[in-house]
Amino acid sequence: MAVDEGDVLTVDELQEAWPILSPEDRVDGFRMLPQAEAHDFFLSLTALDQAQILLVIPPRERRLWLRMLAPDDAADVLQEVPSERRHDLLDQLDDPSRREIAVLLAYAEDEAGGLMSPRFARLRPEMTVDEAIGYLRRQAREHLETIDYAYVLESQQQLRGVVSLRELFAASREQRVRDIMEREVITVPEDMDQEAVAREIARYDLKAIPVVDASGVMKGIVTIDDIVDVMEEEATEDMQKLGGMAALETPYLQTSLGAMVRKRAGWLAILFLGEMLTASAMGHFEGEIAQAVVLALFVPLIISSGGNSGSQATTLVIRAMALGEVRLRDWVRIIRREIAAGLALGAILALIGLVRIVLWEKFFHEYGEHYLSLAVTVSISLMGVVTWGTVVGAMLPFIIRRIGFDPASASAPFVATLVDVFGLVIYFSVARMLLSGAIL
Amino acid sequence: MAVDEGDVLTVDELQEAWPILSPEDRVDGFRMLPQAEAHDFFLSLTALDQAQILLVIPPRERRLWLRMLAPDDAADVLQEVPSERRHDLLDQLDDPSRREIAVLLAYAEDEAGGLMSPRFARLRPEMTVDEAIGYLRRQAREHLETIDYAYVLESQQQLRGVVSLRELFAASREQRVRDIMEREVITVPEDMDQEAVAREIARYDLKAIPVVDASGVMKGIVTIDDIVDVMEEEATEDMQKLGGMAALETPYLQTSLGAMVRKRAGWLAILFLGEMLTASAMGHFEGEIAQAVVLALFVPLIISSGGNSGSQATTLVIRAMALGEVRLRDWVRIIRREIAAGLALGAILALIGLVRIVLWEKFFHEYGEHYLSLAVTVSISLMGVVTWGTVVGAMLPFIIRRIGFDPASASAPFVATLVDVFGLVIYFSVARMLLSGAIL
Repeated sequence: MAVDEGDVLTVDELQEAWPILSPEDRVDGFRMLPQAEAHDFFLSLTALDQAQILLVIPPRERRLWLRMLAPDDAADVLQEVPSERRHDLLDQLDDPSRREIAVLLAYAEDEAGGLMSPRFARLRPEMTVDEAIGYLRRQAREHLETIDYAYVLESQQQLRGVVSLRELFAASREQRVRDIMEREVITVPEDMDQEAVAREIARYDLKAIPVVDASGVMKGIVTIDDIVDVMEEEATEDMQKLGGMAALETPYLQTSLGAMVRKRAGWLAILFLGEMLTASAMGHFEGEIAQAVVLALFVPLIISSGGNSGSQATTLVIRAMALGEVRLRDWVRIIRREIAAGLALGAILALIGLVRIVLWEKFFHEYGEHYLSLAVTVSISLMGVVTWGTVVGAMLPFIIRRIGFDPASASAPFVATLVDVFGLVIYFSVARMLLSGAIL
Repeated sequence: MAVDEGDVLTVDELQEAWPILSPEDRVDGFRMLPQAEAHDFFLSLTALDQAQILLVIPPRERRLWLRMLAPDDAADVLQEVPSERRHDLLDQLDDPSRREIAVLLAYAEDEAGGLMSPRFARLRPEMTVDEAIGYLRRQAREHLETIDYAYVLESQQQLRGVVSLRELFAASREQRVRDIMEREVITVPEDMDQEAVAREIARYDLKAIPVVDASGVMKGIVTIDDIVDVMEEEATEDMQKLGGMAALETPYLQTSLGAMVRKRAGWLAILFLGEMLTASAMGHFEGEIAQAVVLALFVPLIISSGGNSGSQATTLVIRAMALGEVRLRDWVRIIRREIAAGLALGAILALIGLVRIVLWEKFFHEYGEHYLSLAVTVSISLMGVVTWGTVVGAMLPFIIRRIGFDPASASAPFVATLVDVFGLVIYFSVARMLLSGAIL
């Protein structure tokens, strides 16, 4: 879709068309926006989109837009820029900003240090409330990330307390900051993973959390609006892994077909190789199948039931882990619960399966004189397979986490694959026991 | 685990043990906390936990804790209380709070009106900056949700603009509020779904968003810290649905075994009934299986590949829809993309399958003289099944959303079930064509 140079473009039109525009058309569209609206629009873009625009527009405009970003956002944009072009952008900044951003760039993008902003409101403990408000008023003229909280620092930037602007406003004018500040400050270390930072903020319902280094020096704050983006990102990643693929790095529609196929093919091929074991497993029972073809008819039903129950269990456990509700050492409790749930669910499906086979025999005479033994075989196998699927689905995230990987890799398809082979073995073993002498 | 009355309990110990404590032990533990720490701890609890505590403690303490909650949080707690006990709690409140909360209770819990707080900072357009700051200082003594933004209201509570406290601080003392306020305010209607409210806040990187009724009257604000909880909830719900079950209403470990089995059994039984069609489908090809048992060996491999590719596609589309990246009318673009992706992924698996059968024949002589026709049959079926699975997985969320349900119900197991039956038909039809005269 080409954007005609002569058009007058509204923000809504551009926002609408954005996902399907080429990078060049996006820049054209962006430059056609009225200045007043372009500002909000630019700030609403992802760091990746901002980077793409900054790399293409003339240096004069580049400086303007880059300087508009808060240092933590500017650092995110620079992370998205190929390293050989990073200096082009850094050169557009004034010295203090460049130094701030260089510090932020030294942290990994997905840890507290990489998320934080160094522009927080500062106070000294000995100030009076009136002095503090005046001092905050002066600081507010610079670009502070938030003035909801002011951090009380002593010499060497040691964090001593925090006071909310609301408390300052409510206090009487002559009180000292040190007498109204909260001394027990919840902080996070610089290298804490962003998911853990998000959990701390959500747990204590904070609007911002200070980042301090090992010696108690305050380095910056992570604000809740950055956390919202982190939470969306992390949930997206977990879901994509749960769906049986590597997480995409860009939004779905902005990912090229090639990149998407690569992200999906890897796991699909691994699962396929795993699933090949089913062909070998069934090969062991070729004799039984040849004697009683009817056995083969229930294979998809039985293995899919194991996969489905496993998918439920693994989803529940992975999400509970991501929310911090379940920890590694809870595994014994979980396994007990899931064995009970698996047995109950297995019993329900076994009953439905039994009724189905008996009814079909009554009406269609499909399964011959030994239909009852067949029905019992299918039912017992369902009990076993569903219980096994549930337990494997619940335990796999613990095992994967224990060996140091992301538990979300215990995807539903992965669990299903593990369960399928064993499900076949359960089914044909039960059949051997119950049906030999009858149809085997 | 019993909590001994004589113990001194720390917040960390209680937090640690919380998930596994009985409701009675939780209340006991809570009441043993030092008063200073109990405050933060109580505020960090979910509305459900807060309600459980409030219902059990003596009325005198109940009043204390209930009054500590912001009105929107108190309304959430009251939603969790059985309706016959709601009045016991409402009676503990002073009149203005009771009226505020009664208004909030009239909204559904999951829409903007149910999330908002009526306690926002107000200004008049004709005030000077100095008057405005003084006025905010007085308002701050009540419990405002945030003073980061102040909303500029005219007669009848009509919303005219918004000004951030930072802007007020940075402006000169004599300027009028109406000259520095932002007039283009992003607002949401009272009945907007909480997921949509969360998307607006995330999209514009806001810290709070005003809720206005149809006539432009400002009703309250939704703050970003409430949105963080909403986003976690919604992502959890979507994941659980995606895993093939009804969403739980309480955290995993706090859900009773009975409730959990009910939430899981429904979908499991529906999927099981659907999957029964595979037995009928295979019944149609009983003759082929009897003639060439080797065909049965590849059934699990082929149908699971369709299910896995479908799981990837449905996960991607559902998440992209939840994030607002993909809308209903994008379905033609998506189907084109996914057909291309499905063909590519199918080709990769087909090649692996072909190599596998040829190698196994060379080394183990498992598949007889017609192994090459068999290999081609499996490969062509894989192409077909993977492409079909991908397309079904991508389209099902659109169809489900079009008919008015949550697209996340297009779970991976649901897609797999739909794909399995068709996969069997593809496989055996290809086999009939390619292998008749050879092994059939």
